[in-house]
Amino acid sequence: MNNSLAFIHDTLPQKVMFGYGQSSTFLKQEVELRGSKKVMVIAGERELEIAQKVTSDIEVALWYDEVVMHVPIEVAERARQSAADNGIDLLVCVGGGSTTGLAKAIAMTTALPIVAVPTTYAGSEATNVWGLTEAQRKTTGVDLKVLPQTVIYDSELTMSLPVDMSVASGLNGLAHCIDSLWGPHADPINAALAAEGIRALNEGLPKIVADPHSIDGRDQALYGAYLAAVSFASAGSGLHHKICHTLGGTFNLPHAQTHATVLPYVLAFNAGDAPEAERRAAAAFGSDTALEGLQRLREAVDAPQRLSDYGFSADGIEEAVEVTLEKVPANNPRPVTKENLSKLLEAALNGEDPAVLSASHTLI
Amino acid sequence: MNNSLAFIHDTLPQKVMFGYGQSSTFLKQEVELRGSKKVMVIAGERELEIAQKVTSDIEVALWYDEVVMHVPIEVAERARQSAADNGIDLLVCVGGGSTTGLAKAIAMTTALPIVAVPTTYAGSEATNVWGLTEAQRKTTGVDLKVLPQTVIYDSELTMSLPVDMSVASGLNGLAHCIDSLWGPHADPINAALAAEGIRALNEGLPKIVADPHSIDGRDQALYGAYLAAVSFASAGSGLHHKICHTLGGTFNLPHAQTHATVLPYVLAFNAGDAPEAERRAAAAFGSDTALEGLQRLREAVDAPQRLSDYGFSADGIEEAVEVTLEKVPANNPRPVTKENLSKLLEAALNGEDPAVLSASHTLI
Repeated sequence: MNNSLAFIHDTLPQKVMFGYGQSSTFLKQEVELRGSKKVMVIAGERELEIAQKVTSDIEVALWYDEVVMHVPIEVAERARQSAADNGIDLLVCVGGGSTTGLAKAIAMTTALPIVAVPTTYAGSEATNVWGLTEAQRKTTGVDLKVLPQTVIYDSELTMSLPVDMSVASGLNGLAHCIDSLWGPHADPINAALAAEGIRALNEGLPKIVADPHSIDGRDQALYGAYLAAVSFASAGSGLHHKICHTLGGTFNLPHAQTHATVLPYVLAFNAGDAPEAERRAAAAFGSDTALEGLQRLREAVDAPQRLSDYGFSADGIEEAVEVTLEKVPANNPRPVTKENLSKLLEAALNGEDPAVLSASHTLI
Repeated sequence: MNNSLAFIHDTLPQKVMFGYGQSSTFLKQEVELRGSKKVMVIAGERELEIAQKVTSDIEVALWYDEVVMHVPIEVAERARQSAADNGIDLLVCVGGGSTTGLAKAIAMTTALPIVAVPTTYAGSEATNVWGLTEAQRKTTGVDLKVLPQTVIYDSELTMSLPVDMSVASGLNGLAHCIDSLWGPHADPINAALAAEGIRALNEGLPKIVADPHSIDGRDQALYGAYLAAVSFASAGSGLHHKICHTLGGTFNLPHAQTHATVLPYVLAFNAGDAPEAERRAAAAFGSDTALEGLQRLREAVDAPQRLSDYGFSADGIEEAVEVTLEKVPANNPRPVTKENLSKLLEAALNGEDPAVLSASHTLI
């Protein structure tokens, strides 16, 4: 029985409508299909213009623009009250993670359906995870009610996302995909979706760098970001995210750069003990090894190289190791020790060749 | 916009529990989680022993064994009445397509939840499609109520499936995967799941032939059959299934053998005009071309070679072409004509090398 396949996988219900320049048409179809009479559109000020375009074919009962990062509870409660006061029967959110987050906060207590129209690669639209901040403490949870019933992906809406942000956000999605291959609830279904996400991001991001208006590049990156969210939400945080959360939480390192820098080191660290993950990722990158594929992509998009560029230093390693070790998932393919994790962080700090971390390397 | 990605994909909600020898434990967990008090177990006589084992840890309120192929409406109505008379709150079906079909027929009118425990590779458990037969006419439809909420896959239950039936049924699953790559609602999500199904079936079936009790072989085949059902239910019937339905419906050719024989011809026919499908299938087979991979697998499992062995003859080609042409999906990657479809059937009839059908071949 050692070799047998064992997993439990929950597939969440969601309609995905994907099409360049089609968001207003798709949204009209959805509103008609549902017979919605009172639509609340949630969009921050910066997204207002995009949101007006997206909603140009429907009637909007309420515009709501108080969007705040991490969804403070007071903000959520005001929005819930507005939805109730206006007899809202459908929530439409146009924007990134914070905007989707507010729609989720409303759905949590009202069970109103959400149609999400993402304008970034944040991925919150594809998960049943909510987050609320009260007294500066963020609480997160899982509830099927907050999963948008329909997501409309229109890569035309992402055209104005600057190249550097697209790359950072896309590499963050890639980290979701790769960490899904060995997360605590990793399973072959998650892995197949994550591999498709790797393929799409690997194809899309260099095209965006070469031409920020590449429809194909924007399509693939947005599609890949969706898959990243689906697979990661199901598989859960693996070693990569545990390390990055420590670096972000305890050392205040910048989110996107930290993820982009650490990823090849975690991949090199785990790959030798995760042959199935290695095989899938290499195939998805279209390269001989997963690390080779990742490094080729990182080079093509000029990804960050070392943590020392972002405020981390050698005297932080000990504490970072200590904090991370407490959170490392028990199922990580390679046993994580104080020694090998220190070496990983040291290599990432200095931008060493990640290959020094591979299990077969004599130094470890 | 020509090159842009456009699709609508409905992901259906389902919990999949997969584990060798774990069905009774999984079922107990599900019954407890749901707080079900009155469980109706549907299993035909042949599955009775397996069903007793699967349900050994739960209390069963009603055993029901009137399972009939294609679900005649009278059979469905008797089962519905029994469920109502006994105050049933959960349907558990243990068996193949007909058994799952009866559970679906009950769920259709009662909205009772289904936990399906498949013992074959039929795949009905992973779809929202129901079928009923009235006055010898089969009606099918789609209804979310009939989708089993939970599926328990335990490959130990498939160990008694004879090798030839496992292979035939597995190749049928493979046909579902490959046809999903260009079915009328083909999309990259379906394609990624179908490719994972191809990989698993290609890995599992030869292992079953080599050792009918290979746990790994049985696991992979069962897992692949699940993915085949998911992707096919979403993508819909492509050219392969339209041809096989004609051969089965009009000429009474045997189901499994027909699918197994025709598949390489349809693959060779379409592959040149479907580079994305070709790339995915080849990668999934781990071969240079998809056709090469499929033929290697067919050889390993000693698959059927020619339609002439199953009662088809040259004088049937004209009618088969006529009937099929009416049903060919408009989005088939290669335009289908009377001439090239005749050639396809002729090649399949005689067991010619499928490569003669490729678009680049000078004869076509």
